[in-house]
Amino acid sequence: MRIVVLAGGIGGARFLRGLKRAAPDADITVVGNTGDDIHLFGLKVCPDLDTVMYTLGGGIDEEQGWGRADETFQVKSELAAYGVGPEWFGLGDRDFATHIVRTQMLGAGYPLSAVTEALCDRWQPGVRLLPMSDDRVETHVVVDVEGERRAVHFQEYWVKLRASVDAHAVVPVGAEQAKPAPGVLEAIAEADVVLFPPSNPVVSIGTILAVPGIREAIAEAGVPVVGLSPIVGNAPVRGMADKVLAAVGVEATAAAVAAHYGSGLLDGWLVDTVDADAVAEVEAAGIRCRAVPLMMTDVEATAAMAREALDLAEEVRG
Amino acid sequence: MRIVVLAGGIGGARFLRGLKRAAPDADITVVGNTGDDIHLFGLKVCPDLDTVMYTLGGGIDEEQGWGRADETFQVKSELAAYGVGPEWFGLGDRDFATHIVRTQMLGAGYPLSAVTEALCDRWQPGVRLLPMSDDRVETHVVVDVEGERRAVHFQEYWVKLRASVDAHAVVPVGAEQAKPAPGVLEAIAEADVVLFPPSNPVVSIGTILAVPGIREAIAEAGVPVVGLSPIVGNAPVRGMADKVLAAVGVEATAAAVAAHYGSGLLDGWLVDTVDADAVAEVEAAGIRCRAVPLMMTDVEATAAMAREALDLAEEVRG
Repeated sequence: MRIVVLAGGIGGARFLRGLKRAAPDADITVVGNTGDDIHLFGLKVCPDLDTVMYTLGGGIDEEQGWGRADETFQVKSELAAYGVGPEWFGLGDRDFATHIVRTQMLGAGYPLSAVTEALCDRWQPGVRLLPMSDDRVETHVVVDVEGERRAVHFQEYWVKLRASVDAHAVVPVGAEQAKPAPGVLEAIAEADVVLFPPSNPVVSIGTILAVPGIREAIAEAGVPVVGLSPIVGNAPVRGMADKVLAAVGVEATAAAVAAHYGSGLLDGWLVDTVDADAVAEVEAAGIRCRAVPLMMTDVEATAAMAREALDLAEEVRG
Repeated sequence: MRIVVLAGGIGGARFLRGLKRAAPDADITVVGNTGDDIHLFGLKVCPDLDTVMYTLGGGIDEEQGWGRADETFQVKSELAAYGVGPEWFGLGDRDFATHIVRTQMLGAGYPLSAVTEALCDRWQPGVRLLPMSDDRVETHVVVDVEGERRAVHFQEYWVKLRASVDAHAVVPVGAEQAKPAPGVLEAIAEADVVLFPPSNPVVSIGTILAVPGIREAIAEAGVPVVGLSPIVGNAPVRGMADKVLAAVGVEATAAAVAAHYGSGLLDGWLVDTVDADAVAEVEAAGIRCRAVPLMMTDVEATAAMAREALDLAEEVRG
């Protein structure tokens, strides 16, 4: 079975770990969000790709869900001693090595997709990890800071401001001109199932879908497209999906997110058992829906979610 | 008193520490060798400039004479895990931060001289540290490796091959096209004394003098130029000066090095007491010479050497 998964960071990475357990023989291609990539200290940092790579490759800091296990922070502390910031982005020494290798390869002319493949040679994530695009796309969030409306990089909104201010708009800068990375459209065309993990529907999966050609390829693939709600009990399980959903005029409910993707794209939708009363609303919108436990408390619980998603896909396929 | 010092790495840096103690009120400008600069992992590394900066700024690993004190090696070990080398160049985590800041600033368009000044803002070395040039100069050493004659980067010759093979030639690639960095010629023109520390006469001071304009400016400054022999008892005190002297056809003796600089450039020369019999030969060549202890065993012994050099300069001035 060939599965394509659109993934953001922590939520996507953890879901993938469950999916690998649920479908150990599946051929999984992950299309990773690069809209939250950022240049820091002259280095190219790809937080979502790295979170997937580290999580599936066994290098993740399990507690915080991002960054490397057993991390140290000598480089960061020295950079601070030079007065070089930002200090709000916590890059550890082990993590720095990834960004140094990536930046060196990009500087030598390799596209991000080739760089990602080279990095994965080490980590052996057990999936094929593709960036959504080799072109630069940068998610900006429009906020009011000290009375002034301005667009900040997604990382500044999320890590520095901790999503503590309202987002007025979310703009995937450069997305319109971006092309899907080599292999993305092919993987979608050859997929048996496409899954949307419980990742952020706006700044993670939404950004991937904003790359011209990807949404269309999924809609036209003629295979089941099944998503898992990142909203449980009218709140995001983690992160700030509610804030950025508000920015695009979507309620933070499991049903509203399904409607936001739309029946033209989505065939099946899993909501948590606490949102069982949303099932009828989602199905009325033409999307098959089930209520199942959606808390990724451990790998086994996550694998059960993945099985439910694959089961729903089979049901859709009919 | 305005002193200009041409400096390589460890020898130059330690001499400067002694000079600062010997002449605490002097205005010292250091023209640093950049011929051993190297790009590693996409980062610009300036070993000699950094050794001077760390030594005078209190950040040096005292034992080995280069690199940072209390160093760790997480980044390097991760790079190795990615299969990215060279593994023979030992960059530590703290040191990496310096190269990251430097590379970022160079990438933003600042010349190396401005970057060096910015880095020194933190380290406060108590001297004005200038790279010999903002242009790229790279010292290559011609050697036979596995029966084949080829030119290797100085760092490969020195750090990887440990100067274990004969050097047939030393070539400061790019020197002919290089311009002295802003401030270098001005500092020389305004100097009261120019000193050559016991640095390598070929790959350190020789490279600096190979930048068009610097040798001429020193020769024409009309002020005492005094050097300290890096050769003691017919062997280099540290490093591989003997190997690279052979490559340029110069004997590894204190007198031969003085003659190599030449009386057109050098006014005074200090040899070690064990080389007292070289004094007459050096003076016969038109260079005033004294035999004094030249082992930089500690800061006080080094300060005494610096005082001897300054005394000899006064004697030359007459």
